[in-house]
Amino acid sequence: MITSMANGHIKQLRLLLEKSRARNREDLFVAEGIKMFAEAPVSKIREVYYAESFTPKALPEVQEKLRKCREKGVLVEPVSDEVFQKTADTKTPQGILFVMEQMQYSMEILVEKAVKRYTEGGREPLFLLLEDIQDPGNLGTMLRTGEGAGVDGVIMSRGTVDIYNPKTIRSTMGSLYRVPFAYVEELADAIRLLQKNDIPVYAAHLRGERFFDELSYEGGSAFLIGNEGNGLKKETADLADLYLKIPMEGKLESLNAAVASALLLYQASGNSRRRRPE
Amino acid sequence: MITSMANGHIKQLRLLLEKSRARNREDLFVAEGIKMFAEAPVSKIREVYYAESFTPKALPEVQEKLRKCREKGVLVEPVSDEVFQKTADTKTPQGILFVMEQMQYSMEILVEKAVKRYTEGGREPLFLLLEDIQDPGNLGTMLRTGEGAGVDGVIMSRGTVDIYNPKTIRSTMGSLYRVPFAYVEELADAIRLLQKNDIPVYAAHLRGERFFDELSYEGGSAFLIGNEGNGLKKETADLADLYLKIPMEGKLESLNAAVASALLLYQASGNSRRRRPE
Repeated sequence: MITSMANGHIKQLRLLLEKSRARNREDLFVAEGIKMFAEAPVSKIREVYYAESFTPKALPEVQEKLRKCREKGVLVEPVSDEVFQKTADTKTPQGILFVMEQMQYSMEILVEKAVKRYTEGGREPLFLLLEDIQDPGNLGTMLRTGEGAGVDGVIMSRGTVDIYNPKTIRSTMGSLYRVPFAYVEELADAIRLLQKNDIPVYAAHLRGERFFDELSYEGGSAFLIGNEGNGLKKETADLADLYLKIPMEGKLESLNAAVASALLLYQASGNSRRRRPE
Repeated sequence: MITSMANGHIKQLRLLLEKSRARNREDLFVAEGIKMFAEAPVSKIREVYYAESFTPKALPEVQEKLRKCREKGVLVEPVSDEVFQKTADTKTPQGILFVMEQMQYSMEILVEKAVKRYTEGGREPLFLLLEDIQDPGNLGTMLRTGEGAGVDGVIMSRGTVDIYNPKTIRSTMGSLYRVPFAYVEELADAIRLLQKNDIPVYAAHLRGERFFDELSYEGGSAFLIGNEGNGLKKETADLADLYLKIPMEGKLESLNAAVASALLLYQASGNSRRRRPE
């Protein structure tokens, strides 16, 4: 059992929790909690740590996952409650945290797969493009909503907050494992790739030309969402096929970025659902 | 200038920032930041504190508001930067915080006004009913989205987080001043009052009978949203006229509560907009 904060594993865990640079250098990240562990793909789990008072027996899913991890030779190590409490990112940790390999997706393959499915009679392609989103909770909520709406991928500018930030991971509620995503050096390249594949790119913009809920989105869509404080950069918005406006009553200047994303994604996916035969 | 944390005003500010009980006992709350100050109704401002290095001259709106406050005899007091930094709720405060009187709305009057406007040919009534929402950011985002969708009121159960929580205030982005809201002892009473006024009450529910985007919401609507972890209590959901389902792809169990609220409110307000003559 690990009983000291000076333990090498604990130091590594804290580094991975606190520093995105450390996460990206190692291609690893740390996730916490029962639900996140129960849903984690075993193939990606590298190390598991649990608090000494943690009782997986009451949680058959967790017990089964722990068994599989041990079977694969993954390190599964108890930690004293005091050290565990100090290491975890949450104030009231659930007693389990674990190191995982980062997910790797290629934007090109995501687009190709979405187009293929559509040409074979499946759902229309649906993408979310994020420019410099800063709030970890917003990003996590966008991934979660993206899963609900059936997004084919979330493409992020380099300036977007790290998706493996502990707060982001928590607010994805497990969608992190299931929604494909990619960081790109230039959003412009992603926009052009989508357009080349006949997927129109719409920019959520205060100077939108059309209300978001008046279009059909037939054939697929990609939605560009800008930074919380500043919106989209002009040069990015300029590349969009159309600016969309979300109608606003009152004196509000804008909606929360995750809320705006949700409205757009669900409008497109709802229209798409209604076009498909039951 | 106030230079000590032991100053009575500072102690009072911290109490109001930290304790909902103190806020409710005094019928006061504390707001922070330039935007929140610029949009605050002068009639509700009781005391203003600014950091010594704060320069309102670059902000004509703030300067004008400060002038009006002084004219009314409101206390406007400089605070040393060190004390200000320690008092503020934000890590990087914008140099201004102020005490305001709490807003007071009566649910009965909100419903009456909404119904009257509708019978006179105006927009359809639109309400949001919240049961035990716990996340301050979620609640603030709901108010913000509510303003955008043109909600007539946000009605909250007593178990909902305090709307004057500093985090909630920040995430309302000023909607706190403009969206009417009320806490009620029993949500059941609010539901019955709405129904008595021919406003159907819809429950967002995983076992929804209809997709949310397949109804017309003609004549008005009120949406019931439950606690983030547990959803609606059975006895509350039972009172609704209809359960609504938000379609979900993937393996997601639910959407974020603020996202679900946004989808429902905007669906109803969008339908309503399309029914109104331009």
